[in-house]
Amino acid sequence: QDSSDVKLSYGKKGFELATDDDNYKLQIQARFQFRYATPYDIDPVNHIQLMQPARQIAEINRARLKIGGNAYKPYLKYYFEYELKRGALLDFRVMFEKWDWLKFKVGQWKIEYTRERLISSGKQSLVDRSLINQYFTLDRQQGVTIYGNVGNHRLANFSYWAAVLTGSGRSATENPTNDLMYHARLQWNFCGKEMIMEGSDTEFHQKGIGAIALAGATYKGPYNLFSSNGGANIYNVPDSITPFYDVSQLNLETAYMKRGFAWQSETHLKIIDDQANNTTSNLAGTYFQAGYFFHQLFPKFPEKMEIAGRYTIFTPHIDTRDVIHNEYSLAVNYFFKNHLNKLTAEITRFEFDDPGFGVDGRYRFRVQWDISF
Amino acid sequence: QDSSDVKLSYGKKGFELATDDDNYKLQIQARFQFRYATPYDIDPVNHIQLMQPARQIAEINRARLKIGGNAYKPYLKYYFEYELKRGALLDFRVMFEKWDWLKFKVGQWKIEYTRERLISSGKQSLVDRSLINQYFTLDRQQGVTIYGNVGNHRLANFSYWAAVLTGSGRSATENPTNDLMYHARLQWNFCGKEMIMEGSDTEFHQKGIGAIALAGATYKGPYNLFSSNGGANIYNVPDSITPFYDVSQLNLETAYMKRGFAWQSETHLKIIDDQANNTTSNLAGTYFQAGYFFHQLFPKFPEKMEIAGRYTIFTPHIDTRDVIHNEYSLAVNYFFKNHLNKLTAEITRFEFDDPGFGVDGRYRFRVQWDISF
Amino acid sequence: QDSSDVKLSYGKKGFELATDDDNYKLQIQARFQFRYATPYDIDPVNHIQLMQPARQIAEINRARLKIGGNAYKPYLKYYFEYELKRGALLDFRVMFEKWDWLKFKVGQWKIEYTRERLISSGKQSLVDRSLINQYFTLDRQQGVTIYGNVGNHRLANFSYWAAVLTGSGRSATENPTNDLMYHARLQWNFCGKEMIMEGSDTEFHQKGIGAIALAGATYKGPYNLFSSNGGANIYNVPDSITPFYDVSQLNLETAYMKRGFAWQSETHLKIIDDQANNTTSNLAGTYFQAGYFFHQLFPKFPEKMEIAGRYTIFTPHIDTRDVIHNEYSLAVNYFFKNHLNKLTAEITRFEFDDPGFGVDGRYRFRVQWDISF
Repeated sequence: QDSSDVKLSYGKKGFELATDDDNYKLQIQARFQFRYATPYDIDPVNHIQLMQPARQIAEINRARLKIGGNAYKPYLKYYFEYELKRGALLDFRVMFEKWDWLKFKVGQWKIEYTRERLISSGKQSLVDRSLINQYFTLDRQQGVTIYGNVGNHRLANFSYWAAVLTGSGRSATENPTNDLMYHARLQWNFCGKEMIMEGSDTEFHQKGIGAIALAGATYKGPYNLFSSNGGANIYNVPDSITPFYDVSQLNLETAYMKRGFAWQSETHLKIIDDQANNTTSNLAGTYFQAGYFFHQLFPKFPEKMEIAGRYTIFTPHIDTRDVIHNEYSLAVNYFFKNHLNKLTAEITRFEFDDPGFGVDGRYRFRVQWDISF
Repeated sequence: QDSSDVKLSYGKKGFELATDDDNYKLQIQARFQFRYATPYDIDPVNHIQLMQPARQIAEINRARLKIGGNAYKPYLKYYFEYELKRGALLDFRVMFEKWDWLKFKVGQWKIEYTRERLISSGKQSLVDRSLINQYFTLDRQQGVTIYGNVGNHRLANFSYWAAVLTGSGRSATENPTNDLMYHARLQWNFCGKEMIMEGSDTEFHQKGIGAIALAGATYKGPYNLFSSNGGANIYNVPDSITPFYDVSQLNLETAYMKRGFAWQSETHLKIIDDQANNTTSNLAGTYFQAGYFFHQLFPKFPEKMEIAGRYTIFTPHIDTRDVIHNEYSLAVNYFFKNHLNKLTAEITRFEFDDPGFGVDGRYRFRVQWDISF
Repeated sequence: QDSSDVKLSYGKKGFELATDDDNYKLQIQARFQFRYATPYDIDPVNHIQLMQPARQIAEINRARLKIGGNAYKPYLKYYFEYELKRGALLDFRVMFEKWDWLKFKVGQWKIEYTRERLISSGKQSLVDRSLINQYFTLDRQQGVTIYGNVGNHRLANFSYWAAVLTGSGRSATENPTNDLMYHARLQWNFCGKEMIMEGSDTEFHQKGIGAIALAGATYKGPYNLFSSNGGANIYNVPDSITPFYDVSQLNLETAYMKRGFAWQSETHLKIIDDQANNTTSNLAGTYFQAGYFFHQLFPKFPEKMEIAGRYTIFTPHIDTRDVIHNEYSLAVNYFFKNHLNKLTAEITRFEFDDPGFGVDGRYRFRVQWDISF
């Protein structure tokens, strides 16, 4: 704590200040994400949004300031992330990571429920997450979690997370009800090493790395949907009604990377019990995603270019399967400096089948430059 | 101003960058305050709030970014403090502190009116300030102040503050009326040294340090109450009325610290002359607070643990004394690294006596972790 | 990108961190602007604002945090500027400046349309910009620009800018229509060197430096006015009407500096074609501004003091010339440390001639302290 010598360096988390004993460390980094999209930038949720008039959108989509480090001891870590454009505090968390097998975290952060959400928006393989993520993510919550990695460096390697959260979403200042959110995740790292949370195998792992994970969550209260804006609802709710939902959800994930090839998938199920209206909704969704640096096969193919594709399907009512939303995406990434400086072009085809509207499709085109300083 | 050698260090104000001549200095520090409270977190102001339904509240209560330093000369100092969670600029001030006996400050900051408010929310002895602080604090204001410390190192040691302020509270962009706020404070440092603005004697002063202070303020305008949200009113005011108050208030303080023992008290009087309705309200309040590191007496008691207690009484109408609010608090502090990393558990008993509601009481329990990086 | 040695320095852009190879650099600086004004602080736009009741305004007018630098290569630069008081992200931009004659910029920034607006609010010669700037500035926009400097170091030296922008103003998250804003500027640096964007010749150029520039812009959409709050309208528009304007505007500028003398002028023309109401408005405005460090003539005059004056005239309808707004300003600057630490006192006389109100005048007095850390 007393004034002591400090060393300065620059690494992949930006500029870093650290005391000689490494007890105190501070890293600072900014990230900008520029995006062009047409005819719109959103992932449509219904026919009206799907068929909306075409527009050209050019904007700074994300402007982040990230400050992390440790204090008092190397294993007492902190991190906060600020969205400069919206003026929103996204992450604030303190981690106690003295032991690999038992770690603690308190604050607000992206809950470890889906790999796609966990992977930073700057480390995706496509321009952004899949169509289904908006329905199933728990996004950021406030609370505590216990986590760690156990086992050996062969087949028996597992990571676990168990969390108790207020379930009110990002920036909530209080819990609207006394009910809490519970979340657990078990991840089998079948290659003997904890799977990394990044899209695209920019590190060209010579030895494969992968995981199969099962995650679950249950919560009660006025929300059944979470985004970086906080708690919300899938369905329009009249002002006169205070909704109360009992939500349970499950996610089965796979992920694998080797020599420039990257794979990941998620299959989600979500049961929303609307206790105010005595109705139940069952939603399901799946995506499969793969990417490859074709230079590994064809030496003439640009070394830093990856082709990635994703197929997503969403069913808002799994009982009748009457409505189906499909998303087909293809993207080309050029990694100037891996995920820290990256250009992405993406084309997506949406195909929605809804008995009330018939079958409709639409192409969406996007270009994105994501750069960290 | 020209590019010159800069040294880097870590101290109790965080990481510090300073030019070799000390003419330029910048310190950066973050602070998080995590809090759990039940049945509520507020200091109730009436029976309805006192008896409200029980809730469990777990939240990040404060997330601050503090940047301070000096520029051009060592005595031209600046400081700003940003509340990350709410996106609010709390402090911005420039100080000219060339002479001990005559200093100047301009900007927005917490006016030196009450010791309890002045002490940072991270350096309190209990989880938060007393019940009466919300009624009497001037909180942050914009303006100028002249201050200093005069006298010798024995009995005759005095600190003074004299301020002219807009009286519009934090974040006001203009003065709603032409009336200003005037504030003065005289502090007798009877141990020959300027009293520090911290709760709990974490430094274990071997020689006692203490002060008796008298502070006064007067202001006119639409506000009679100030918080970190800016100007407000104690009473509900119908929209159809533009209130205009003439407020005068006085505060008598004591504070003392020695060998792990800390004492402080405040006695407030506030006269609100409501010129729109031609009525006058007289409010009074007092608190007494003491804390002790019992390890000083009993070596087996944990060295870094302090027990602190506070009694507070508030009378909204001193003429009739019909309504009385009492607050009894007891807290245990564990100082991992003095106030920079501290855990506090607190139990409070509120007892409200109001002819319209009778006598009612309620317990409140809170746990807080306050950590600076 | 790998951790490498970092050097630390302090310069006119604040504290600077840079890797040894200069590929990575980060500069951080804060700026506060304190202002006192009476009877008001605004530039009045009509008789009602001109004759409004007198008030005293003392406030922090600007509180900025500026972070700039480069990443990956010395010529890949970034910059962002945050307004702490309002919590608003003003600038975010990435520049590719490898070649002098061809540079690229993407993001949000103050468009290079008028010199007065381009000059930072901390580097003006008077307390703030002229009365006409609010009508003609394009302020900040989002988009891309190509720019550079070509020619020799004698007469034939030109700077150019060509930009395509969304035309939605600062902080817009989408373009309300598909129409874009186009902007071009050609600047003849007749002294053989690119003209600097600062008021007041604080550097005492021994060799003259100057420019004549012509700038134009055209845009369509719901806005005909831009400020640091984003897009707006000159005229009150009823809620029931969605306005749509086709705006064209031109600016002719001059600027010159030598041995403590500084000159600048702008002449603006703006044609607003209101397509919803089928009406056209033609606005014109001009200002002339000069400043001088009289110490250059009279050695007894304080060395760091400049006297500056400005005359501004605005005509909202150039066809009839029935309404005329005049502004006469005189200011005294004391530069403690050039524009980085500066005190300004200013007196302004407004004279408005409007057939509906007659001829009226008003004095405005302002004092300002602008300091960067």
